[in-house]
Amino acid sequence: MFEVRFLEDFAVGQTFRNGAITVTTEQIKSFASLYDPQPFHLDETAATASFFGGLVMSGWQTAALTMRMIVDSELKIAGGLIGASAEELKWPKPVRPGDTLKIVSEIVEVRDSKSRPGQGIIKVRTETLNQDDQTVLVLVANMIVPRRRA
Amino acid sequence: MFEVRFLEDFAVGQTFRNGAITVTTEQIKSFASLYDPQPFHLDETAATASFFGGLVMSGWQTAALTMRMIVDSELKIAGGLIGASAEELKWPKPVRPGDTLKIVSEIVEVRDSKSRPGQGIIKVRTETLNQDDQTVLVLVANMIVPRRRA
Repeated sequence: MFEVRFLEDFAVGQTFRNGAITVTTEQIKSFASLYDPQPFHLDETAATASFFGGLVMSGWQTAALTMRMIVDSELKIAGGLIGASAEELKWPKPVRPGDTLKIVSEIVEVRDSKSRPGQGIIKVRTETLNQDDQTVLVLVANMIVPRRRA
Repeated sequence: MFEVRFLEDFAVGQTFRNGAITVTTEQIKSFASLYDPQPFHLDETAATASFFGGLVMSGWQTAALTMRMIVDSELKIAGGLIGASAEELKWPKPVRPGDTLKIVSEIVEVRDSKSRPGQGIIKVRTETLNQDDQTVLVLVANMIVPRRRA
C-alpha cells in the first residue's frame, strides 16, 4: 500500500503515473449498454458508418477508467480521492478496442480552502494516453485534501 | 422514436427533460468495483466514517447516468451525441442509494465549427437533480452537430 498524503505533502510539479489497461470490445459494449447506448459504442457494423468509422469507447467510460488508474496510483489522499469539480474534460482522440491506456497526473495548484477550514484543494491535470502516446483524455480536476494539522 | 436534429434545429433556450432513474446500492457498488474502488462507494460501514457520512455514488457514475438520461431524451442529434469537451463538471451534492435522478438540459450556445465545415457545435448545460430538486451534477458540454445542408 502507498502512504496517504495530506495537503502539506503536495507540491506543484509532482507527477503520478499509472497503467496500463487494455480495452476490450466486450468492456466497451457492456458499459455502453448501461450508460451510453449509441450505435458507435454497441455495434461494429453501425459504427463503421459513423463519425468514428468504427467501434469506440464512450467518453464517460474513458473518464471512469482514468479514475480507476488514478485510484490505483500513488496519488493517495487522506480520506480518499474526492473531486469537487472538473474545470476541463476533453477527448481529443477516441479509444478503440485493443487500445492500451495509461495516465500521467500532475499537480498544478495547491491551495487552502476558503469555505472549509482544515482543508485544501489540489488541482490535478491528468492526461490519458494510448499505446502510441496519443492523448485520448485530458481532465483538470479540483480535489479536496485535508491538512495534516487541521 | 424522436426525430433527429441538425444544427439548424437548435436554438438557445431550448430545454430537454428526462428521468427518473432510482439508484440502488447494488448499482453503486457494481460501478465502483470496476471504476472507482474507494471505501465510501463500496462499504456502508467504512462510508459512515468518511467525508460523506454514508455510501455515495461515484461522481463518474452520476455523470454516466446523466449521459444515459440525455441519450434517452428528445435531444437526438443526427449522427449521435458526440461530446468534444466539457467546460464544466461539478458535483454539488452526493448521490445516495434510493435517490431518484432526473435531468434538465438547456441549449446555451449554437455556432458553426471553425475547423470542420458542414458541422457546428452546440453548448448544452445539463443539471441532474435528485427527488428533493437538489442539484447533484452540473455539466456544460460542447457537442458536435452536423448541418442539414453541409
